[in-house]
Amino acid sequence: MNHGTWDKIRVVQYGCGKMGRIIMRYLMEKGAEIVGAIDIDESIIDKDIGEIAGLHRTTGIKVTRHNDTVLDNCNADIAVLTMQSYLPDMHKPILECVTRGINVITTAEEALYPWTTSPAITNQLDALAKRMGCTIVGSGMQDVFWVNLPACIAGGVHKISEIDGAVSYNIEDYGIALAKAHGAGLTPEEFERDIAHSLSLPAYVWNSNEALCMKMGLSIEQTKQKAVPVFADHDVRSETLGKTIKKGNAIGMSAVATTITHQGIVVETQCIGKVYEEGEGDLCDFTIRGEPDTHFSVEKPDTVAHTCATIVNRIPDVLAAPAGYVTMEKLPYARYMPYPMHINID
Amino acid sequence: MNHGTWDKIRVVQYGCGKMGRIIMRYLMEKGAEIVGAIDIDESIIDKDIGEIAGLHRTTGIKVTRHNDTVLDNCNADIAVLTMQSYLPDMHKPILECVTRGINVITTAEEALYPWTTSPAITNQLDALAKRMGCTIVGSGMQDVFWVNLPACIAGGVHKISEIDGAVSYNIEDYGIALAKAHGAGLTPEEFERDIAHSLSLPAYVWNSNEALCMKMGLSIEQTKQKAVPVFADHDVRSETLGKTIKKGNAIGMSAVATTITHQGIVVETQCIGKVYEEGEGDLCDFTIRGEPDTHFSVEKPDTVAHTCATIVNRIPDVLAAPAGYVTMEKLPYARYMPYPMHINID
Repeated sequence: MNHGTWDKIRVVQYGCGKMGRIIMRYLMEKGAEIVGAIDIDESIIDKDIGEIAGLHRTTGIKVTRHNDTVLDNCNADIAVLTMQSYLPDMHKPILECVTRGINVITTAEEALYPWTTSPAITNQLDALAKRMGCTIVGSGMQDVFWVNLPACIAGGVHKISEIDGAVSYNIEDYGIALAKAHGAGLTPEEFERDIAHSLSLPAYVWNSNEALCMKMGLSIEQTKQKAVPVFADHDVRSETLGKTIKKGNAIGMSAVATTITHQGIVVETQCIGKVYEEGEGDLCDFTIRGEPDTHFSVEKPDTVAHTCATIVNRIPDVLAAPAGYVTMEKLPYARYMPYPMHINID
Repeated sequence: MNHGTWDKIRVVQYGCGKMGRIIMRYLMEKGAEIVGAIDIDESIIDKDIGEIAGLHRTTGIKVTRHNDTVLDNCNADIAVLTMQSYLPDMHKPILECVTRGINVITTAEEALYPWTTSPAITNQLDALAKRMGCTIVGSGMQDVFWVNLPACIAGGVHKISEIDGAVSYNIEDYGIALAKAHGAGLTPEEFERDIAHSLSLPAYVWNSNEALCMKMGLSIEQTKQKAVPVFADHDVRSETLGKTIKKGNAIGMSAVATTITHQGIVVETQCIGKVYEEGEGDLCDFTIRGEPDTHFSVEKPDTVAHTCATIVNRIPDVLAAPAGYVTMEKLPYARYMPYPMHINID
């Protein structure tokens, strides 16, 4: 504790992969202090975060696999968790932070609004966080672009019957497991047999749809989802699969989540994950049907950079939020941070 | 006063032209009560607002020119002022409301953020509104689409050097005076002589630029503007001018406002007013330059409907705001209103 009126925000980076490294650089550029870095990847263990995050200097903080030691010793204000997408996989690392009273922000997509997809875990984490006086928030580009953006535009619309969205990502960027889970390379028959009826996990847009409804003051009746294959209309090369996908076979799929509200407004978003071709970029398109119809889009959003920027911009909101599992639609709109982030301490 | 826990919001519509009539319909559809309607247009004086606003019923409220009588007798919560664009022209009707303690929301474009373009009037109105316990707000589509939208997207961006916007409207929609003020039909020499150096009034984007900077926590160093002619690349028919504009002459102009902030971020927005051709629609395009570059747009926004919807959606925010001249960037983001609007009265 110094004798000034403000102090740096101290952060543990938990997960030092692609996203974690960008987030660490953004954090340093915004004046935060990284006090610990945790990962299990042998290739980066014991490396200085300055090296892996491209900071052009040595910080003295090295990546370690000893999560308990880091969390016990570093007096962090917040931990940034960038590992898995789903809450059951994130339960343990979130608990490690919350039991120590450390605030959590995570890129886990389900964490954005997990109240219907993992209600028991969410409720338990909420109760524990309230007891420990800390806050858990899920964020990422969906926060700003899939939830706040359509809610913002809806403020200029008189009547709404439906909100239709389409977002996308390139499965070439996320490894072989994800490519296979999206049915890339399968024939139509194989897709129908292996993927179409086996969507066991919620689509990322399930959670963002529900956050959007809650932000707009709508009550959720139910969310349904289906998997729709995207077929190649000519041969498409996939580096991730290490082969060419033949015309007529699947290059990926669209997970379509439809959220029906008690107010009659329907939110339907397709989340397209497929092998991109030259020149293709991510999508972020929305249409509000009503009075008046309103169509808006972000042109080829830089999903990775927007996710990292949103996480960092959200940190002051997490620290200012009440204790508990606070879904992002209960926070103010995320803000650009023109100044270094800090905590008032007097 | 009834004995329930809530009551309808009571509104005086001051200005019953194109915008006022749509706003009255939206208000009725959202459960507000229109308690007075003021205009000086002989063709609608004494007509029931149900007739002029297309409500399919008679309300008993007739358009009148007797502003003082209406404002003295109707116990309104708020007056919606839809007449002129600039604050000096709106000073008197705003004073009429504020001296009676009636809240004001207005479509006057300058009113969005008039602190540098009409500082004396704004300061006087602010002081008076504080004394009288009521609130003055300027709003319209700029509120949601030119200010909140770029501020919302900026929440997902790490570093910003510049924000560039382009918005537009069809001068055929707004009468001969506006068409002439935009230089429509002038030769390049005439434009240079009569318009280029005589921008005496602030462009609408001057005020929205500054509201955006304030919303983003930036401090304004100065705003500059210039008039740039838009020339026809082939003959273009203007019904408003009642003539064909020859190739090479001006079909309108772009008012470019550049706002420089002390933080180094520059906001430059062009506001294009010109004679549209078949199939052209309004523009609302923004690019945030920084990390990452982010481009977003609304496709042919319905400027009139969005303005009226925003005004109506803003009314609960105005009633909840502190007394004074409260510019819109100090309010929460405008919200879609899924329920009838009302005031809690117990």
